[in-house]
Amino acid sequence: MAAVARGEVAPDEAARQLRDLPFERVGDDAVIDHHRALRTGVPEVVYGESKTAEQITNALGALAARGGGALATRVSPEKAAHVVKHVAGAAYVEVARLVRVPALPQHERARRGRVAVVAAGTSDVAIADEASETVDFLGCEAVRITDVGVAGVHRLMARVHDLRGCDALVVVAGMEGALPSVIAGLVDKPLVAVPTSVGYGVGAGGLVAMGTMLSSCAPGITVVNIDNGFGAGVAAARIARAVAKP
Amino acid sequence: MAAVARGEVAPDEAARQLRDLPFERVGDDAVIDHHRALRTGVPEVVYGESKTAEQITNALGALAARGGGALATRVSPEKAAHVVKHVAGAAYVEVARLVRVPALPQHERARRGRVAVVAAGTSDVAIADEASETVDFLGCEAVRITDVGVAGVHRLMARVHDLRGCDALVVVAGMEGALPSVIAGLVDKPLVAVPTSVGYGVGAGGLVAMGTMLSSCAPGITVVNIDNGFGAGVAAARIARAVAKP
Amino acid sequence: MAAVARGEVAPDEAARQLRDLPFERVGDDAVIDHHRALRTGVPEVVYGESKTAEQITNALGALAARGGGALATRVSPEKAAHVVKHVAGAAYVEVARLVRVPALPQHERARRGRVAVVAAGTSDVAIADEASETVDFLGCEAVRITDVGVAGVHRLMARVHDLRGCDALVVVAGMEGALPSVIAGLVDKPLVAVPTSVGYGVGAGGLVAMGTMLSSCAPGITVVNIDNGFGAGVAAARIARAVAKP
Amino acid sequence: MAAVARGEVAPDEAARQLRDLPFERVGDDAVIDHHRALRTGVPEVVYGESKTAEQITNALGALAARGGGALATRVSPEKAAHVVKHVAGAAYVEVARLVRVPALPQHERARRGRVAVVAAGTSDVAIADEASETVDFLGCEAVRITDVGVAGVHRLMARVHDLRGCDALVVVAGMEGALPSVIAGLVDKPLVAVPTSVGYGVGAGGLVAMGTMLSSCAPGITVVNIDNGFGAGVAAARIARAVAKP
Amino acid sequence: MAAVARGEVAPDEAARQLRDLPFERVGDDAVIDHHRALRTGVPEVVYGESKTAEQITNALGALAARGGGALATRVSPEKAAHVVKHVAGAAYVEVARLVRVPALPQHERARRGRVAVVAAGTSDVAIADEASETVDFLGCEAVRITDVGVAGVHRLMARVHDLRGCDALVVVAGMEGALPSVIAGLVDKPLVAVPTSVGYGVGAGGLVAMGTMLSSCAPGITVVNIDNGFGAGVAAARIARAVAKP
Amino acid sequence: MAAVARGEVAPDEAARQLRDLPFERVGDDAVIDHHRALRTGVPEVVYGESKTAEQITNALGALAARGGGALATRVSPEKAAHVVKHVAGAAYVEVARLVRVPALPQHERARRGRVAVVAAGTSDVAIADEASETVDFLGCEAVRITDVGVAGVHRLMARVHDLRGCDALVVVAGMEGALPSVIAGLVDKPLVAVPTSVGYGVGAGGLVAMGTMLSSCAPGITVVNIDNGFGAGVAAARIARAVAKP
Amino acid sequence: MAAVARGEVAPDEAARQLRDLPFERVGDDAVIDHHRALRTGVPEVVYGESKTAEQITNALGALAARGGGALATRVSPEKAAHVVKHVAGAAYVEVARLVRVPALPQHERARRGRVAVVAAGTSDVAIADEASETVDFLGCEAVRITDVGVAGVHRLMARVHDLRGCDALVVVAGMEGALPSVIAGLVDKPLVAVPTSVGYGVGAGGLVAMGTMLSSCAPGITVVNIDNGFGAGVAAARIARAVAKP
Amino acid sequence: MAAVARGEVAPDEAARQLRDLPFERVGDDAVIDHHRALRTGVPEVVYGESKTAEQITNALGALAARGGGALATRVSPEKAAHVVKHVAGAAYVEVARLVRVPALPQHERARRGRVAVVAAGTSDVAIADEASETVDFLGCEAVRITDVGVAGVHRLMARVHDLRGCDALVVVAGMEGALPSVIAGLVDKPLVAVPTSVGYGVGAGGLVAMGTMLSSCAPGITVVNIDNGFGAGVAAARIARAVAKP
Repeated sequence: MAAVARGEVAPDEAARQLRDLPFERVGDDAVIDHHRALRTGVPEVVYGESKTAEQITNALGALAARGGGALATRVSPEKAAHVVKHVAGAAYVEVARLVRVPALPQHERARRGRVAVVAAGTSDVAIADEASETVDFLGCEAVRITDVGVAGVHRLMARVHDLRGCDALVVVAGMEGALPSVIAGLVDKPLVAVPTSVGYGVGAGGLVAMGTMLSSCAPGITVVNIDNGFGAGVAAARIARAVAKP
Repeated sequence: MAAVARGEVAPDEAARQLRDLPFERVGDDAVIDHHRALRTGVPEVVYGESKTAEQITNALGALAARGGGALATRVSPEKAAHVVKHVAGAAYVEVARLVRVPALPQHERARRGRVAVVAAGTSDVAIADEASETVDFLGCEAVRITDVGVAGVHRLMARVHDLRGCDALVVVAGMEGALPSVIAGLVDKPLVAVPTSVGYGVGAGGLVAMGTMLSSCAPGITVVNIDNGFGAGVAAARIARAVAKP
Repeated sequence: MAAVARGEVAPDEAARQLRDLPFERVGDDAVIDHHRALRTGVPEVVYGESKTAEQITNALGALAARGGGALATRVSPEKAAHVVKHVAGAAYVEVARLVRVPALPQHERARRGRVAVVAAGTSDVAIADEASETVDFLGCEAVRITDVGVAGVHRLMARVHDLRGCDALVVVAGMEGALPSVIAGLVDKPLVAVPTSVGYGVGAGGLVAMGTMLSSCAPGITVVNIDNGFGAGVAAARIARAVAKP
Repeated sequence: MAAVARGEVAPDEAARQLRDLPFERVGDDAVIDHHRALRTGVPEVVYGESKTAEQITNALGALAARGGGALATRVSPEKAAHVVKHVAGAAYVEVARLVRVPALPQHERARRGRVAVVAAGTSDVAIADEASETVDFLGCEAVRITDVGVAGVHRLMARVHDLRGCDALVVVAGMEGALPSVIAGLVDKPLVAVPTSVGYGVGAGGLVAMGTMLSSCAPGITVVNIDNGFGAGVAAARIARAVAKP
Repeated sequence: MAAVARGEVAPDEAARQLRDLPFERVGDDAVIDHHRALRTGVPEVVYGESKTAEQITNALGALAARGGGALATRVSPEKAAHVVKHVAGAAYVEVARLVRVPALPQHERARRGRVAVVAAGTSDVAIADEASETVDFLGCEAVRITDVGVAGVHRLMARVHDLRGCDALVVVAGMEGALPSVIAGLVDKPLVAVPTSVGYGVGAGGLVAMGTMLSSCAPGITVVNIDNGFGAGVAAARIARAVAKP
Repeated sequence: MAAVARGEVAPDEAARQLRDLPFERVGDDAVIDHHRALRTGVPEVVYGESKTAEQITNALGALAARGGGALATRVSPEKAAHVVKHVAGAAYVEVARLVRVPALPQHERARRGRVAVVAAGTSDVAIADEASETVDFLGCEAVRITDVGVAGVHRLMARVHDLRGCDALVVVAGMEGALPSVIAGLVDKPLVAVPTSVGYGVGAGGLVAMGTMLSSCAPGITVVNIDNGFGAGVAAARIARAVAKP
Repeated sequence: MAAVARGEVAPDEAARQLRDLPFERVGDDAVIDHHRALRTGVPEVVYGESKTAEQITNALGALAARGGGALATRVSPEKAAHVVKHVAGAAYVEVARLVRVPALPQHERARRGRVAVVAAGTSDVAIADEASETVDFLGCEAVRITDVGVAGVHRLMARVHDLRGCDALVVVAGMEGALPSVIAGLVDKPLVAVPTSVGYGVGAGGLVAMGTMLSSCAPGITVVNIDNGFGAGVAAARIARAVAKP
Repeated sequence: MAAVARGEVAPDEAARQLRDLPFERVGDDAVIDHHRALRTGVPEVVYGESKTAEQITNALGALAARGGGALATRVSPEKAAHVVKHVAGAAYVEVARLVRVPALPQHERARRGRVAVVAAGTSDVAIADEASETVDFLGCEAVRITDVGVAGVHRLMARVHDLRGCDALVVVAGMEGALPSVIAGLVDKPLVAVPTSVGYGVGAGGLVAMGTMLSSCAPGITVVNIDNGFGAGVAAARIARAVAKP
């Protein structure tokens, strides 16, 4: 807009630039928003669930070409095989169901901040790994702590010290989802709770775990959508990087 | 039926007896089932919520006349004033919102069994008191433990010994309802969980607390309806009396 | 802690033991809690639903190695084939969908207590069998009673005597879930109701059966999650063993 | 249309008649459908819940003027006082919350058919009375049977003979709503089940009772909306009159 | 009981008979209730949904052996192939997904009563056929009327005369489920509405259609569970047979 | 932006203008968006439900001061008394629960387009009036048609001609909400359906009516929120004005 | 009816014609309503979801035979292969999952009106294409705009001019469904919002997106069922054709 | 524990201390946890919703006596009058519905961190104020921004700069709840979203706003319970203090 004011760019031309520049059209219907990292601190990430292998490949390839690393989440093994074959440098993390392309050397930022990612049960590990991979992708250290469910509080007590050494916590739990409440009563750190769809009967689909976390008596817990390990990873990394900034 | 076979009672007369005897018609529409205590171990109790003060008075009076004590639950202070005035020996327990008539001396059974009634927060005390009064009414000792919510596990740890000394546990919690899970991981006793309607937003009405309790990872927890302190008291007393029988 | 006080164990060492000893790490993410049986009376059991055949095999093997018997629930026939092949002594109970490893002779405790397990319809038998196998695994006698649904009250009446001979009841029902109400009106025993996911339309998934059981007018009924035959078995066995203790 | 064909009535005039005749405009926004009784066998009835006392008075008065009797349901005592004062012959039935105007002698049809109206508990009597008043208004005999809930099957058994003597049954129940299932297993008569909003916790509002009735294993049960005693009365009377027709 | 009174049967023996006689144990867990037809007017019918082909075969065979005809509903083509092969006289009705065994000549009762079965759309025909086959099995005439949905009221108007000629109506509709309301405003006959699970989005699973039918302004509609063509057929046949009785 | 390019306005100043100009701060927390009518064709309207009488008065007064007329919806009689007293020219429309200030002469636009507003029952008239007042406020002619519910299709048929003479339809219905389906099958006009909260039991709150409208088989129906007569009026007026533009 | 009045047609014959003429019976259970286009402006369209390939082929063939073009929606690729093979001129649009038969030359109407169809994300394109194909089929110009989700408002701003050039808007969005609110705040055009079932966790199935659209603060938005691109296309085309009429 | 090891404290005495020391019993059933601030960084706060004025007074007084300031939330004006009268230094913040007692001088910590609290509409201000008062109580600077709802994106754009100057954001919105999505697409800061119960129809109670926030496409948003301004304030202050630490 300053350029427009200086007369260097005609207003209509500026409008055209606004429309065309920061976005890159990929295939017929996808548009990549390359300025997003500048604006929000998080590069655009490909959500693979309802996309074809070709759509993921095209979008991930376009993002990777910038050199800052790229990530696609919710990628099935079948789709991943196709993606990995066609995008240079891409690797599949099977449990976490995501495809990563590492940043080129000139795009690497210093690693900064530490996030604990806690899983209540073995069934919650996939979502916890989606979170920890995201944390790592965004340049923080991820500390994985698994199988410390609330039915055996003793196991958890033994890890309190580790939790206190992190800048932010991601706590992943299905079934009754009570683990974040217990941890938030013990540790003074920003805590993002992730309900998982692990459960059955009244808890099927994760709504009970989500309700438990949102209703928690322990103040300061915040919650993301069911199975949204990625979103929790972004939120926690955003906090940890801010806290740990030099 | 044996009497019928011996020819002492005609079959049609037996049918009439079956119809008329064990029940007592009270007012126009209520029928009191006096044999219930023999059949189920629990005397009939008046559920006062949707009855008028007159209906409660009539039903409680009829039950009390047998001498074995009588109980009416969910009685508002306004209704209670009327009931207490018209039923001899009746007393109102305000927090628990129930009216009790003590048993006559010849109906007293020996006190037997001990039940811990635990409330997670001060807001859960009314329901916990409904449970502990019921436990007491049914002839067991009730041990009240209050304000030991899951957000401060330390408080709970200090009471584990007391819990282990009881025959059965009633654990009352609203909000996220996680307390029964934690207790069941620490104590080896039959545990009846009572969700309360204390909560707001996604937890309003108690559905989240109920879901948490039903989905608990800690095996052996059983659950009653939201705010059903009476039912939990009956279930726990039934267990405690059986365990503590001489 | 007494050992710490006597100076035999340094505090820091005690903390290390607390952390390391009672748990055994199995594979990457699972931790087995071997002290649980001491603390809660129920040995840890493997919930197989969202675990791989390898994860179940590893966990069950670790538990079985202690000699006290081991149990894995919700195991599909495909996974079971793998588990049975790799864990010595393991056998698959197909209808109940669980794998059992019997206790070694020196770990056997005396059998104690009797639990009736009642199924309302043939479709509820799988869950009832999960309950009765659990009861048996925990050292009680299980009495199976099947196909006595509420639409034909006559069938049920004929079994009332059998029900009265048990220390605790598990009643399994889908569809409208009314059977526990009827039984609780006839028999004076602790009753754990299990709703099943058998049903369709408004009753699909078991929520209606669960609601019916929680709303029952018959006092003293307690409820577990939909299809949770295991949890009901644990709760009932816990009661029966306490009642039947010498 | 036959009159049109005979040329006695011009088509356009016929259309005008269709529009104007069978309906009577009452006040600004209500239209009374006087032909409805011919078409559907049920005269139009005023649903009072969301109408003012004036609206009810106007509508009931217009219906009553035809001489065949008139009915307004869901009328609060306050509104009823106004209605009764302004509509000749109107009387208020307080428990059932309805206002009736009896038919003039020349409009009376012969009484025909018998309907049993069963209430599970004293709290269900208001809805049962709405049903039995409706049955009576439509010219059938209503047999009221109260307080025979499922938790005491014995009471019900004693009334089976009475139920078998009716042409149709209305069964009203709140809480867990299991009574219709039990009755339908004992008696071979068309049965209309009415869930009531009596209940709390998971059963609040009557959804559990409704689900139970719709999911019933006993074939042949049909269901109306929660608290819809009027609709059940209409359905049962329609059946009973057809069955009992000379 | 009269026999007991006459001393011809000892009371204990009577209890044994009550327990053993009217039921026949089939396989391990199913019990056939042969007296049900006497008691409720409807012979026991096999619900095939959650049974194996073998279980259906055994149960249907046992019922068919009495000669009065037999019916199994919700049978998939795969299971049906097995059943038809092993039960003499059994035939599969594919659209309605049920297996029928006709009554032996000496068991035939006179055909009596007429039921209209109306389907709103082609997608509702399977459920409508389940209803009309049931009606026919129970000895009434079934009149099928298809594809007369509410979005084209003209089609429906043309069939009003046919509807008025029946003793009872079954109206089957998915999506918005408005057809029963419209028909009940035009025809004075007992009407059983069946919501179907045809629908998507907010109407997925049939809950919207069910809600519409239960909330209908047209008095006298009664409703069965979603997709419960069988139950609607039983209810309507029960009415039609009573109305048409000689 | 063109002004910025011409150098007449400095970029920073432009930003300030953007921030300050089109909005007017009212009291502490409300901001009036005076440019909205230019941008969206609908002047800002005050939603009174959760505002105090003072807040409504301030906001409505600020809007009215521009001369183009002003509207506040969901205003209780108590609040309205205050508003009408303090805002010049304001008048209360009681049934519709809204306060209107007519436009000053110089702001009047030509009246254009015709919208039919249909109410299924007398209980739906309040919402229908909210819609028709809104239509009128936005400069279209509103044609009110009341009490033509689906249970009496005859009444509706008589008004089809009137409906065809309008540019857009608003159809308001509670209970089962089937009226829009029937009308959309008869009339070729854009139709906005408004579910109302009139109903009880399963239809309480309007969710059934809303579901019916969204699931309608009749193509081309669109739906607004429950009781949102205002939104429907805006949508229909927007269509009618576009259709009727000279 | 005029013909009847003139005596040219006997009343009974007229009734027969009403019944038989405007509809064509197709196969056993489907009836095609050929007059619908005259009555509602939209030719009957085949909803393929719960029909077999043969049923779709028959219905589409019958519609196509009239020459005005034909459409079948929700057709899987497998069914489409069969349909395309047997209906002359039929072509499959794979992403939109529909089969179209173009109108014969003598049936073509002039193209009229322009509708923008906006998709928030690549996952919403299938439903958006169902809408734009429908718009095109009904004779309007469809302008497709994709991947302009609310998380990057910049992209949307660049397309505002295009949106303002259309007569009506269809806005398709899953996940949180906020795009229609934002667009309705910027553009003064009738807007039909389509929630899609794209989403997971609390947003699974599209209920959150639907709720967001119905609750929108931006006045004038109307909503159709989840994934109902067809219905939105019909509604928008109906509006656009009316607005653009010569 | 170290003291125990040194023999200075007997193990039993240590257990007693653990039980008695960190908690203070207040009245009969409440226990104040004075060590909580050390353990979790947040002093215990009194949740006033379901407590009596006396209970709040007692609890707040006990907390205030330590000198570090005290807070009670969800206090009605009636209860507040009592509390303010009996607790020295207490003041009521009416819109936010909370009572604060300022810290004594020696307990003041340096103010640190800045949190923006954004309200979408005037109706959301009460919850936003609960959040900003909490932020202030916990020692951060709160920046209030009101009435910048998503339907007028222009207003929001003007405040982006202010948002970027804060360490964490709290965004409060009811109705469709889309504001956090839009802000998170523009600003790179940790964002806590608070759904409010402002809304009606499908959005009544705040579930739609909550679902929208949890389903947001904008990564990094976290959510608290409906109307939980306090929890959001705690979470944001915890982040801001960590980020802004010297």
